[in-house]
Amino acid sequence: MEIKHLKSEDIMGMEKIFRSNLINSLSGYKSANLIGTEHEGYSNLAIFNSVVHIGANPPLLGMIQRPHTVERQTLENIRSTGCYTINHLPEQLVENAHYTSAKFERQESEFEHCKIDKQYLDKFPAPFVKDSPVKLGMRLREEVPIESNGTILIVGEIELAEIDESLITEDGQLDLNRAHTVAISGLNRYHLPKEIAAFPYARKEELPDFK
Amino acid sequence: MEIKHLKSEDIMGMEKIFRSNLINSLSGYKSANLIGTEHEGYSNLAIFNSVVHIGANPPLLGMIQRPHTVERQTLENIRSTGCYTINHLPEQLVENAHYTSAKFERQESEFEHCKIDKQYLDKFPAPFVKDSPVKLGMRLREEVPIESNGTILIVGEIELAEIDESLITEDGQLDLNRAHTVAISGLNRYHLPKEIAAFPYARKEELPDFK
Repeated sequence: MEIKHLKSEDIMGMEKIFRSNLINSLSGYKSANLIGTEHEGYSNLAIFNSVVHIGANPPLLGMIQRPHTVERQTLENIRSTGCYTINHLPEQLVENAHYTSAKFERQESEFEHCKIDKQYLDKFPAPFVKDSPVKLGMRLREEVPIESNGTILIVGEIELAEIDESLITEDGQLDLNRAHTVAISGLNRYHLPKEIAAFPYARKEELPDFK
Repeated sequence: MEIKHLKSEDIMGMEKIFRSNLINSLSGYKSANLIGTEHEGYSNLAIFNSVVHIGANPPLLGMIQRPHTVERQTLENIRSTGCYTINHLPEQLVENAHYTSAKFERQESEFEHCKIDKQYLDKFPAPFVKDSPVKLGMRLREEVPIESNGTILIVGEIELAEIDESLITEDGQLDLNRAHTVAISGLNRYHLPKEIAAFPYARKEELPDFK
């Protein structure tokens, strides 16, 4: 096994796309979600791989926003309306979802161009993805600026959730395997995870005999 | 297919553990990383499921820290030394890694109690996980407070990376399948992902014929 040993200067000296691909792979597997927004009659849908759990009480999720990219329409719509939707990306929509990252104009809806069915729920002011197994209506709680590189952590509270009931296990966790929710690595690789293990709440007095 | 429809008040009315399990499942699949720190001769290792990509130039990763939990030893060590390591969790260490979340005392090293081999690289002042396929030496750049719930986004810069060379693809992305890196869902479910698709950089002029 050859080991690649990189220092800061090696990383900074890489060709730009190569470096972007590498660094985008280093956090490990990422969540795959479609973010739906709407303002002045124009709806937008964007794939995000940075949705992260912030807390359960109140129920908060975060996502990283790069302000100067194609994703900015999402940010502008969230700022205008205070609302957005998070929709798990199921296997069947992987190709459609990937192409929401193309540079569409504001008046061009990704729902239409990428053939993803739109759904409205409970008069919530942002569109959901009809064929997503987990749909969340989010209210913007906080924009947290990250000074190191000018990105923003968008923190939202879950106001509404629509979930296929058969996915909810006895203890409240979701069976994401059954949902066919995918994971992402790097910038363009999509994966279907398969559960290999689940362990009880960890207590020092109950350590197993490790292999 | 039965649909579970939840509003804010339904979520807030749930039994605490059930709610925590559910909300922790809603972001989708999560990265699985072991965070190594050391201060005054005491080394600490903690499993985190919130490492997230922040940016490639400079190379930044973030992670969410709950200050009042068992993980606080990690935060204290990072504050004291300015350094920590991020190590991808490989399949073979899943059980060991899970139990680093038990409440060990400061003088009890998770490396020892959970039988995970420690490694030092380049005099970097934090310990690495020897059997991890992707090892990152991180320098603290920024602590970003999240006011909505008192958590903190810890942002660090990659100063050192040691990666099995055979994992690096031609375009710089890592083959995480080959690394046997795992993903997490909820609080205690571990998964092995399998790549199902990769797509080129998305251009509006090159949309495929969607199914």
